[in-house]
Amino acid sequence: VSDRVRVSVAGGTGYAGVELLRILLRHPRVEVVRASSEQYSGKRLDEVYPAFRGRTDLVLEPLDADRLADGADVICSALPHGTAARTVARALERGARAIDLSADFRFRDAETFRRWYGEHPVPQLLSEAVYGIPEFSRDAIRSARLVAAPGCYPTGALLGLVPLARAGRIGEGVVIVDSKSGASGAGRAAKTELLFCEIEESVRAYAVGSHRHGPEIEQELRLAGGPEHVVFTPHILPLRRGILSTIYVPLADERELDEAFVAVYEREPFVHCLGSGVFPDVRDVRGTNDAQIGWTVLAGRGMAIVVTAIDNLGRGAAAQAVQCLNVMQGFDERSGLDFLAAVP
Amino acid sequence: VSDRVRVSVAGGTGYAGVELLRILLRHPRVEVVRASSEQYSGKRLDEVYPAFRGRTDLVLEPLDADRLADGADVICSALPHGTAARTVARALERGARAIDLSADFRFRDAETFRRWYGEHPVPQLLSEAVYGIPEFSRDAIRSARLVAAPGCYPTGALLGLVPLARAGRIGEGVVIVDSKSGASGAGRAAKTELLFCEIEESVRAYAVGSHRHGPEIEQELRLAGGPEHVVFTPHILPLRRGILSTIYVPLADERELDEAFVAVYEREPFVHCLGSGVFPDVRDVRGTNDAQIGWTVLAGRGMAIVVTAIDNLGRGAAAQAVQCLNVMQGFDERSGLDFLAAVP
Amino acid sequence: VSDRVRVSVAGGTGYAGVELLRILLRHPRVEVVRASSEQYSGKRLDEVYPAFRGRTDLVLEPLDADRLADGADVICSALPHGTAARTVARALERGARAIDLSADFRFRDAETFRRWYGEHPVPQLLSEAVYGIPEFSRDAIRSARLVAAPGCYPTGALLGLVPLARAGRIGEGVVIVDSKSGASGAGRAAKTELLFCEIEESVRAYAVGSHRHGPEIEQELRLAGGPEHVVFTPHILPLRRGILSTIYVPLADERELDEAFVAVYEREPFVHCLGSGVFPDVRDVRGTNDAQIGWTVLAGRGMAIVVTAIDNLGRGAAAQAVQCLNVMQGFDERSGLDFLAAVP
Amino acid sequence: VSDRVRVSVAGGTGYAGVELLRILLRHPRVEVVRASSEQYSGKRLDEVYPAFRGRTDLVLEPLDADRLADGADVICSALPHGTAARTVARALERGARAIDLSADFRFRDAETFRRWYGEHPVPQLLSEAVYGIPEFSRDAIRSARLVAAPGCYPTGALLGLVPLARAGRIGEGVVIVDSKSGASGAGRAAKTELLFCEIEESVRAYAVGSHRHGPEIEQELRLAGGPEHVVFTPHILPLRRGILSTIYVPLADERELDEAFVAVYEREPFVHCLGSGVFPDVRDVRGTNDAQIGWTVLAGRGMAIVVTAIDNLGRGAAAQAVQCLNVMQGFDERSGLDFLAAVP
Repeated sequence: VSDRVRVSVAGGTGYAGVELLRILLRHPRVEVVRASSEQYSGKRLDEVYPAFRGRTDLVLEPLDADRLADGADVICSALPHGTAARTVARALERGARAIDLSADFRFRDAETFRRWYGEHPVPQLLSEAVYGIPEFSRDAIRSARLVAAPGCYPTGALLGLVPLARAGRIGEGVVIVDSKSGASGAGRAAKTELLFCEIEESVRAYAVGSHRHGPEIEQELRLAGGPEHVVFTPHILPLRRGILSTIYVPLADERELDEAFVAVYEREPFVHCLGSGVFPDVRDVRGTNDAQIGWTVLAGRGMAIVVTAIDNLGRGAAAQAVQCLNVMQGFDERSGLDFLAAVP
Repeated sequence: VSDRVRVSVAGGTGYAGVELLRILLRHPRVEVVRASSEQYSGKRLDEVYPAFRGRTDLVLEPLDADRLADGADVICSALPHGTAARTVARALERGARAIDLSADFRFRDAETFRRWYGEHPVPQLLSEAVYGIPEFSRDAIRSARLVAAPGCYPTGALLGLVPLARAGRIGEGVVIVDSKSGASGAGRAAKTELLFCEIEESVRAYAVGSHRHGPEIEQELRLAGGPEHVVFTPHILPLRRGILSTIYVPLADERELDEAFVAVYEREPFVHCLGSGVFPDVRDVRGTNDAQIGWTVLAGRGMAIVVTAIDNLGRGAAAQAVQCLNVMQGFDERSGLDFLAAVP
Repeated sequence: VSDRVRVSVAGGTGYAGVELLRILLRHPRVEVVRASSEQYSGKRLDEVYPAFRGRTDLVLEPLDADRLADGADVICSALPHGTAARTVARALERGARAIDLSADFRFRDAETFRRWYGEHPVPQLLSEAVYGIPEFSRDAIRSARLVAAPGCYPTGALLGLVPLARAGRIGEGVVIVDSKSGASGAGRAAKTELLFCEIEESVRAYAVGSHRHGPEIEQELRLAGGPEHVVFTPHILPLRRGILSTIYVPLADERELDEAFVAVYEREPFVHCLGSGVFPDVRDVRGTNDAQIGWTVLAGRGMAIVVTAIDNLGRGAAAQAVQCLNVMQGFDERSGLDFLAAVP
Repeated sequence: VSDRVRVSVAGGTGYAGVELLRILLRHPRVEVVRASSEQYSGKRLDEVYPAFRGRTDLVLEPLDADRLADGADVICSALPHGTAARTVARALERGARAIDLSADFRFRDAETFRRWYGEHPVPQLLSEAVYGIPEFSRDAIRSARLVAAPGCYPTGALLGLVPLARAGRIGEGVVIVDSKSGASGAGRAAKTELLFCEIEESVRAYAVGSHRHGPEIEQELRLAGGPEHVVFTPHILPLRRGILSTIYVPLADERELDEAFVAVYEREPFVHCLGSGVFPDVRDVRGTNDAQIGWTVLAGRGMAIVVTAIDNLGRGAAAQAVQCLNVMQGFDERSGLDFLAAVP
């Protein structure tokens, strides 16, 4: 176990990328070697994001996998799916390890990937990639060469469902995940529907029954012993960060759920079980790697409601990726992730 | 049918009350006789709410049922539940008709009321009150002496569910109503949890499994031929106005739903069916009596997702009450309700 | 005076354009003949803006000045500056009157226009255009063939300053206009800096000392007998609609200002003077043609603070244009403008 | 210089108090001994603010100055003004040093205090208190027994003005400070005017010409060699955190201002000069102790516009108090303050 790790960031100026840099530049055991940005290459990071004023002299570079891998132990990619795969593959060839925040390595087989995203450029890597939720697959992450950081919605959904699946608590019937997300989940591309005036004082469901995070949730839930299918409905809210997932779970029996959650999360520093009848608010996890979970069993209905709150850019993207990095390096998992949500 | 109606408003400075006054003061066939406000009695309305500057000289009065009924054909009450019942009862005795926006006359039997709100002060009126969704009970409203304006969440839920119940389309299994509401639904009382800094950049579920609008939805759905039970989860969002209800409906069969909705809403001026695969946004109904509805059948899952959007203060309270008033008076239902949401 | 006026709208799907259509389609004396939209031509208006569902069957057309003028008495253009001038000029040739919401006809001489916007395509029309604030130039508007609807910031500033200039109350020293605007003032173009996540929880000054509305304020203030120069600083806030202008005015003497404001606005239906020591809030004019004005004289400092509130899309653009239309047609100025801000 | 400092917090659950605890609980050289809360005494901090889940077992205590001082080297008080003075005085008697975030020790003479806040309970301490902006009075803070943490508005104004005053750059004429603040500046008391629905989509000026932070700005500016008087106008925006101050400064001459700012801030880790023509945004300092400053000289007008951005709860309250604590203890000033604003 080395004392420090050298990290390059591909795609450093999208919302997930800049969150990665915010965390990594303050991480006591990380040295940020390089960061790329197609749109802003040649500019200083603190010119693009003035929040970094006085904190770094980092200058953004064009995307070049060889150059990013040069002198780096690990590449973190926040490139869009499609672009990410080739960059990551090249970095692996150059001897780096990689954490990819796109969807490119999340599916375990190329056929499912093709159905939702198109032809995969390096399908041979799919079987090697480890789906990176440390609470569920810490050992595999530790030795992984390639970690696929989960999607934001799947992270929120799986943190609420996997403990129940593992404990055999999910019964017959349909699992429903109704998620409410902040607008940063849609990224920083200049699109009319993401303008302030189109989001403020507005709420809508989108991609109803067809969002690409649906099959991602189903894949991982199935692997945890859960049901084949999940109904997943994402909504976009006038909120910058945060995903609240309200999950309706048919139960095999009506015993309380505490045991199932405690069994998985008891010693976890980042997942906080609020207990039965107490429900989380996204504001309490904002800017952090934390997840908060509350639940209730609806007596006589054979159903539980589980509510999880995460920050889509933190636990749902960059912070969870850094937690994976800490696991891969044998660091304390909390290194560089000691954030506490600023409230209000 | 008289040309004009004289209306008094009880409780004119809460959020539903002031919305009532906003509508009634511009209504071409309404004369606002009096308005009461405990908190601001003696003040001009346009002093409390400067938006009314130049529009009215109305001075708020103390709450006095006799005085409100005096010279009024109809009393509209936006008093809190508990207070409303006695005021309304007295106004009826004085010969006025009444539309009550509180929960006091929404339950059809005193026992259900007691369980959720406590002892009913005038239980003998419960059987007479008409639950006021004009699209569902226009004839009863027309001749009613007392109309109970529905709760905001029930309005959004029932507009999506009643057509399916009537058409016999709801199958075995649990109906789930996951609602996302603006903060104005919680009223104007000075509570810490409703402060700007507690709501902005925040989302949370509340009263999970125990909200008083749950049994209200169940009562009306049952009367429409639907199931006994509904799982209802309200959420509060950083939004002023609007309720988006995402409704998960187990289906008796997987045929499309268009026919069921068209059968009920085809000629309705205020309910707009967006059709299968098109989903509404609360911003498009803001400030209006409109409801917008979209849906999709999830093939192979035996389930439909229905999404309804209303303004909780408009369709969910004051505007629907005025629509009832128009029905009661034999006016064109659109009178005074020709609002079009200002977008953005 | 004809009973009704036929109006075509050029540029009907930007934020000012759709606000125009929202007002005009409900205006009791207006028939909307045609509306153009480059981006959405061929689509129904209620498909682009679902708020119009059930209110209109209008189909958007490509921009064609001849076709827009055909059968129309008046053209209202909400096209961007540069594009607007030629369309308006052509419509005038075709015999229509025109109200232009762009900057193209606001400057009284071509040289000033050139300095701020570039070469003017039809400079010969500049001297004919009437700057359209009805409270200040009602007679000229009445007989105008071409009205230039003022910029949003200039409207807010001039409503606060012109009465003082006319009354000779402005003294030596610098007039400062510090304006706080909602994001809709920047339009609906898909720009990164206007994304929800870039505006929410953010405040910034922009175009400090160089905004093109500065010389527009100066031109009109000078014509009203005020000073040559004004310091103007616009800010963008996490707000959809509204401009609050805090105006610092050096005074010739320290007498109260009521008389100066009352002299101009006493009988005006849309401008509400709150008086000394009472200050407006943008929420009270949202969605309307109203302006609210408050002020205070700072004793011993030789200075007054005047605060004006308008809706940038209403009084600052579309609603004021419709007020001009009403003046041009000899209608009651309140026709179609009887909005009352929905609060909350 | 000891390695660590033991700190008690009085008033730990208001917005400034909880921000103090957020910083102090993560501070590597601070041990939080006790925290009081009148409203929540007996409760766990993480029950009142679930953001602290998993970070602390702190239980809130009733307010008792002796108990707070017991075993503490320093007391930080975030009590309201009036209450703070006695608690602080008692803590000093018990041998602790104190940092007070209220207004109680900001004025240098009891007469000015009386005019704005009423009779001072311990006027004898006023001359001893040090006004705590470390960039301006580091040496006095180092040896102070009692530091008065400045008001949020004064901090933003003075950071922009003091360098110009010290350099003799402020000329004849009126200095105007037009400040735009987030709602958290008004505290967490349950007041109707601070409800979400009263702030969202709203902007207003308040306490125009009469805010108590005006004389505080004037006192410190005068001591820095600046003018006697300042015109100060606060505004409240739909924003949680942040103050943007747009400052209009009459200049003695029109040379650029860089030198004046650089002279004071060149080596300061928390104050970032963006330079001439570049203006800050409050989002870039959110949650931090940073200040960002931009400016421009308006040629020919004898005036500069200086814009400063701070977080009212961070630099404007708790974080600046911790910077003072670091100075008092001889710690690196950045200890525990290495936050970087999360953008978006």
